[in-house]
Amino acid sequence: MNKNSSNIMALAPNTPNKRETVCIFGTGDFGRALGHKMIQSGYPVVYGSRSTQISNLIPKDAEVLSHAEAAQKAAVIIIAIQRQHYNFLTPLAEALHGKVLVDISNNLKLNQYPESNAEYLAQLLPGSKVVKGFNTVSAWALQSGTLDASRQVFICGDDVEAKQMVMNIVRGLGLTPVDKGSLLAAQEIENYPLQLFPMWKLPIFLSLGLGLFFFFYCLALDVIHTYIYENNNFSFFIAITVPNRVFPAMALTLLGLVYLPGVFAAIIQLYRGTKYRRFPDWLDKWMLCRKQLGLIALAFASLHAVFTLVIPLRAFSSWRTSRKIISQALNNETEPLDHTNAWLSDSYLATGMLGFFLFVLLGITSLPSVSNSVNWREFRFIQSKLGYLALILCTAHAMIYGGKWFLNPSAYKWYLPDIYMLSLVVPCAVLVVKFVLIFPCVDKPLTQIRQGWERNPRYSE
Amino acid sequence: MNKNSSNIMALAPNTPNKRETVCIFGTGDFGRALGHKMIQSGYPVVYGSRSTQISNLIPKDAEVLSHAEAAQKAAVIIIAIQRQHYNFLTPLAEALHGKVLVDISNNLKLNQYPESNAEYLAQLLPGSKVVKGFNTVSAWALQSGTLDASRQVFICGDDVEAKQMVMNIVRGLGLTPVDKGSLLAAQEIENYPLQLFPMWKLPIFLSLGLGLFFFFYCLALDVIHTYIYENNNFSFFIAITVPNRVFPAMALTLLGLVYLPGVFAAIIQLYRGTKYRRFPDWLDKWMLCRKQLGLIALAFASLHAVFTLVIPLRAFSSWRTSRKIISQALNNETEPLDHTNAWLSDSYLATGMLGFFLFVLLGITSLPSVSNSVNWREFRFIQSKLGYLALILCTAHAMIYGGKWFLNPSAYKWYLPDIYMLSLVVPCAVLVVKFVLIFPCVDKPLTQIRQGWERNPRYSE
Amino acid sequence: MNKNSSNIMALAPNTPNKRETVCIFGTGDFGRALGHKMIQSGYPVVYGSRSTQISNLIPKDAEVLSHAEAAQKAAVIIIAIQRQHYNFLTPLAEALHGKVLVDISNNLKLNQYPESNAEYLAQLLPGSKVVKGFNTVSAWALQSGTLDASRQVFICGDDVEAKQMVMNIVRGLGLTPVDKGSLLAAQEIENYPLQLFPMWKLPIFLSLGLGLFFFFYCLALDVIHTYIYENNNFSFFIAITVPNRVFPAMALTLLGLVYLPGVFAAIIQLYRGTKYRRFPDWLDKWMLCRKQLGLIALAFASLHAVFTLVIPLRAFSSWRTSRKIISQALNNETEPLDHTNAWLSDSYLATGMLGFFLFVLLGITSLPSVSNSVNWREFRFIQSKLGYLALILCTAHAMIYGGKWFLNPSAYKWYLPDIYMLSLVVPCAVLVVKFVLIFPCVDKPLTQIRQGWERNPRYSE
Repeated sequence: MNKNSSNIMALAPNTPNKRETVCIFGTGDFGRALGHKMIQSGYPVVYGSRSTQISNLIPKDAEVLSHAEAAQKAAVIIIAIQRQHYNFLTPLAEALHGKVLVDISNNLKLNQYPESNAEYLAQLLPGSKVVKGFNTVSAWALQSGTLDASRQVFICGDDVEAKQMVMNIVRGLGLTPVDKGSLLAAQEIENYPLQLFPMWKLPIFLSLGLGLFFFFYCLALDVIHTYIYENNNFSFFIAITVPNRVFPAMALTLLGLVYLPGVFAAIIQLYRGTKYRRFPDWLDKWMLCRKQLGLIALAFASLHAVFTLVIPLRAFSSWRTSRKIISQALNNETEPLDHTNAWLSDSYLATGMLGFFLFVLLGITSLPSVSNSVNWREFRFIQSKLGYLALILCTAHAMIYGGKWFLNPSAYKWYLPDIYMLSLVVPCAVLVVKFVLIFPCVDKPLTQIRQGWERNPRYSE
Repeated sequence: MNKNSSNIMALAPNTPNKRETVCIFGTGDFGRALGHKMIQSGYPVVYGSRSTQISNLIPKDAEVLSHAEAAQKAAVIIIAIQRQHYNFLTPLAEALHGKVLVDISNNLKLNQYPESNAEYLAQLLPGSKVVKGFNTVSAWALQSGTLDASRQVFICGDDVEAKQMVMNIVRGLGLTPVDKGSLLAAQEIENYPLQLFPMWKLPIFLSLGLGLFFFFYCLALDVIHTYIYENNNFSFFIAITVPNRVFPAMALTLLGLVYLPGVFAAIIQLYRGTKYRRFPDWLDKWMLCRKQLGLIALAFASLHAVFTLVIPLRAFSSWRTSRKIISQALNNETEPLDHTNAWLSDSYLATGMLGFFLFVLLGITSLPSVSNSVNWREFRFIQSKLGYLALILCTAHAMIYGGKWFLNPSAYKWYLPDIYMLSLVVPCAVLVVKFVLIFPCVDKPLTQIRQGWERNPRYSE
Repeated sequence: MNKNSSNIMALAPNTPNKRETVCIFGTGDFGRALGHKMIQSGYPVVYGSRSTQISNLIPKDAEVLSHAEAAQKAAVIIIAIQRQHYNFLTPLAEALHGKVLVDISNNLKLNQYPESNAEYLAQLLPGSKVVKGFNTVSAWALQSGTLDASRQVFICGDDVEAKQMVMNIVRGLGLTPVDKGSLLAAQEIENYPLQLFPMWKLPIFLSLGLGLFFFFYCLALDVIHTYIYENNNFSFFIAITVPNRVFPAMALTLLGLVYLPGVFAAIIQLYRGTKYRRFPDWLDKWMLCRKQLGLIALAFASLHAVFTLVIPLRAFSSWRTSRKIISQALNNETEPLDHTNAWLSDSYLATGMLGFFLFVLLGITSLPSVSNSVNWREFRFIQSKLGYLALILCTAHAMIYGGKWFLNPSAYKWYLPDIYMLSLVVPCAVLVVKFVLIFPCVDKPLTQIRQGWERNPRYSE
């Protein structure tokens, strides 16, 4: 049977590997890296170059010709030159007429030029079909073959067939093309590789500032105050005890900050009586980084969980336990079980664990592949219902934990409240206002406004 | 260089932002929200409206015309009116001829009409190209710009070019179009936003019922029985001890229920001697929700893990430890290490942890993005091989835990078995039957049947 | 209103369900399974068969005709026959002219034939439009309706419209078509279902070997040595203590092995003075499985975390604690807090937890859906910066843990170093070399080389 098939194979021996020639203009780093990769993937490559001086740097199996000659050899031409040299292409307009030009350029900063490089190229050479692509791939990754990051190549262009041809080459190189539509998307695609977690900046700086404040506050009360007034050097608290007081405070405050803008938005809408006016800018920005704030809060909550579970393994903890037991044993007494204390201890742990569990659930549903597989109604259900439940449980966790100390003057070192009291401010404020907002007399007009109703329609404007 | 490029820019100053006019029929909430968003994204918007009375509600920069006039201004018309008013479009058939009509309507319940709204629209206006889309996006999310949920917009339609035009607009608004094929898919797309975790209902109700039963069963045996017969008020067990007996029982039972239908299916196929007859309806439904059952089981297993790790932090636990140690100290004795007990304790913990580890691994591979990146063979390997290994480890965990109590009459309070015995019923049944099924004399015919062989081919039918 | 719509419905009663007839050549297992599924989804199915003998095995509602007759009934013909029988199709070339032929065949091993089955079919029948598809779906899954694995169907073909038709059918069956480009991709699609974690083989065998070595090494030192020289039978250490010494050693060594090839690559590039020569084969392979190595390391780190947290729950641990406390109590003494020890214990735990936290973060960003949503720069930042930070923290964790034992002769049982010392070798080597590489005098030429500069350009070649 095999024989049979190979007989017929002989009729068209090299069909399965017929890859069409690709032309590359420019022999810079990225042009060479792309050429290497294409030759490896079976594409004949022709370089278009001003001189043949530098030809020994480029891949061995590639041909090097003048620009015009090289352009004739291929239907797809990759423009691996910098934007500021694009105008040297205008004399070649004739040779490039009808060709697919792939703009792979990147800029040095966001929105450097008024229009994207690809659109600029399309204006220079109206007779060619410009496709944007490959700019999101790293030359180093192409070269070393270690594309362990995203294999996605964003493609856009006005000509559907030209886009198809480029997408086929992308697939031929073992990458995944992603169609981003018409050339209008080029600006976005060119900005894409330049950004470094743009949505994360605000939340990270915010939590860094808050974290440092909490850390020094806690350090002052728990280590320095103890050292001064009780003459105990508990400097090793810096490793676990202090962080484990800062982490939950951060988690709770940030979780409160996730739900605070929603409450503000509701109040603003109720006050204005319409939803058809934009929120103030700061609120818009805040609402857009709620997901990031929530994920950072989750990170702190996870750290708090691990730092808490590790407590029984600490040398300090086993020293304290044994000291307590020995003093009881030496006094010949056995403490009876304090039921109130057992209740408090267990319910504080239970609310914390359940809150953390819901919090992790929220985190999982914010993974892109999970949130893409739920509809809007389901997403709202999880993020709103489960989110508020998590907030309530975590707030209760902190309240039961602190419970008996709220009214105890000895808890206020230097007349300052303890850190868990500070961390309760934001979530309690959110919960109180939210509680008011779900009263029918407030909820009804709010729902109407959100469905498009207006208190004072703008007839007069 | 910049100068150079901007000179050429001047030739076609507004090319990069040329967005084609979009027409919207209907000035209801969604129509206005969409219009706002489009204007923000640079699209000129024309509203088609019966009257200009309500024109002040709509975005400032939009034009408002009569339906026929508005239709002339744009190639794409968004039909933001309700299905029951579609027939008023029939007189406009001429004006809408050749236009792309985007049906964005939703129904109030699943499968409300015999055909989808988009197909109904296509029947009414056979000369227009109907595309379904945007109905899965929330007006509120569009309005407030906080699209933190899915940015996917499902699109379907019979005309490829019309679909392309709508997909370009979707991308222009910063959303991700997902092509769902021909207009036949409209019914599914219209049902999509209405559902609320349809696959989760059965598993959640099942585990709710089972959970309540286990909770009260355990409450009766562990709290009420102790109160009556030992006169100990351990009501605080409700917070951690009782849940931590219910959670593992739930996890183990649900994990067994994940593998039970597969065992049933094998028995039915062996009995029937063919795979070409449908399973009974209940089995089909059960098999379809195995993934959900497994994830709920994983949730309970995770809760069990956290509730167990927290034990040393409980006030009750430290009280019990110190009481035990003090009584030994007062009696001047030191208990020697019980090696059997050390073996049992360690192997019970180790099997539990390894089982939980595999369980989490199964959970991770059921994330959409992970399961999409493995092929069928790999998926079967993980879910079947690793899944059964996890089931065996977790069952062993429960058995070693309970080990010595099985034959001890004092473990049967009120002559009832303990909760962990109940939880072993389903997984043990599954494992025993599965053990029989892998015997060659049973496995061979089963494999043949699954490859298409039939014991009694239906020649006679 | 409903009435209105159903009146109009009556005009075209069966439009919404008009599915075009599909023809299936071949009545083998997969052909029948596909036919069943298609009939369930509303497609009329016609089988093309040599004889009508076996017709009773196929779905009831399907028609069975001769091949030529069946082909006439449908535009899409599914070729559910094996490659070795393809040549019987050549006489049917006329009947199949212009038809869309769907090649669904799979091979028994990777790259079994010189060209893919689909390309072979296209050569045999040049007048037909061949599309590859459905081969990645399991017949068993189609049959039983339990497609809980990937619903993706890879499609490729040279004719865009033919591909569209097949993709519509795929969607009609409730599956998700994924366009893989031209027929050149058929080879890859045919190989896809045959592979079983190809990238995981090397890392798994490596960690299996390393794990076994560490296990027996640790068993010898911790259990056998103790048994021989101290006459203590600690065989139960096999369940938790020994694994919990092997797991962290594995995690740390494997994490070191993730970063070792990057260091090698830098040294090779510095030595060669160019990046334009391929790395040795072993280094290439190693670099390609870094992600897998890292995930296995993460698995071991997670097991280490859980096995450590469970320590206070062990019977051995509570026995040891109580023995220690009782001996103190009986001697009437109270040990004072050892501050150095408290510092060491706390900082060893804290570095471990922070390192593990960063490690989990790295694991989450390597989920496909997450790594697809970050650009190259962000990916490099996470994997390189955070990765090295995790490596430093984990190495510090092991060093502080072992700290005082390094120079203590009693720690060297049988003159062998303890397992944690072995596990430090690789990460320390990586960190030392990396430390040298970031010196400006080394980093500068390396950066230049990676940007395309060459020390000895190959002018002479």
